[in-house]
Amino acid sequence: MRRRLPVALVHYPVVDGHGAIVTTAVTNLDVHDLARSARTYDCSDYFVIHPIEAQRELVLRIRTHWTDGSSAKRIPDRREALSRLRIVSGLDEVWDALGGRACVEVWATAARDIGPTIAFAQGRERLSDPSDSRAVVLLFGTGWGLAQGVIALSDSVLEPIRATDESYNHLSVRAACAIALDRLRGAR
Amino acid sequence: MRRRLPVALVHYPVVDGHGAIVTTAVTNLDVHDLARSARTYDCSDYFVIHPIEAQRELVLRIRTHWTDGSSAKRIPDRREALSRLRIVSGLDEVWDALGGRACVEVWATAARDIGPTIAFAQGRERLSDPSDSRAVVLLFGTGWGLAQGVIALSDSVLEPIRATDESYNHLSVRAACAIALDRLRGAR
Repeated sequence: MRRRLPVALVHYPVVDGHGAIVTTAVTNLDVHDLARSARTYDCSDYFVIHPIEAQRELVLRIRTHWTDGSSAKRIPDRREALSRLRIVSGLDEVWDALGGRACVEVWATAARDIGPTIAFAQGRERLSDPSDSRAVVLLFGTGWGLAQGVIALSDSVLEPIRATDESYNHLSVRAACAIALDRLRGAR
Repeated sequence: MRRRLPVALVHYPVVDGHGAIVTTAVTNLDVHDLARSARTYDCSDYFVIHPIEAQRELVLRIRTHWTDGSSAKRIPDRREALSRLRIVSGLDEVWDALGGRACVEVWATAARDIGPTIAFAQGRERLSDPSDSRAVVLLFGTGWGLAQGVIALSDSVLEPIRATDESYNHLSVRAACAIALDRLRGAR
């Protein structure tokens, strides 16, 4: 029995290149790519979190176009991916949707070292721990990453994705999410 | 000594959802994301291949904006990634840029089983084979994937990315490239 693994993409609070807390705009391909990766790795849900109603409406329009509009028939695989998308205004709504904060374990992701982390191999093991029934919410930040306040309310931080050159880490959130899911859940 | 690993994104010949051979339009985030992933995993080059001059000019404008324009100073990491981008009209130009077809080994990628493949673990080993000085060109297709003609001229095909549910594979090319590079070159 594997634990439920919802993915969540945060647009606020995140930091910009100077470390200031900002709200980012929705990127269409973030909606698609993370939904497709989430479906591929059997994540139960993909939460897009945005505090601005007009931006949530935009994401809902994208979702509806692919789940019920003309494109749903044209690309059924995409329909299946976008069906897992849930649009919420903040993290509290994510916890609520999953039964409350006590029912979830929250893992933040970060590109840079920001303190103690859990290794991907360890995360992989914990995801198949049959004695823990809590869902693991995997948080990704847009912009320059999750604000410190989001890190602080998380239970753990996943180790940064290490490639060959440890000093360079400037992956897109679309690439980072794909790699993280593959390391946590991909066939080995 | 690791072998050189250029990445190439093919816009023609690729197939559409009905299997017809088509030319796809350039997607801005393909240019960025694959460049960022390529730089992260220390790929020597990222070739964007497009037969239409106006599309190549568009990619060149994107490149220039990030390597020499106002954004180069704003995000130096992005500059470093986009600096590895090379814009060519066809596969022959890729081989030429790398010393000729005999100097490269070509690995195609595909989302579905299309015959004998090499496993990622095997690919990983072959990439660190000190007795082989050839570069390995990793080919990715846009649209619904590389045309059969491109598969046929390749030396090998990498196994499809397997997640948990083998019947679903509808990753974006941005996600697929990131996962493939991580499996072939990521720190273990």
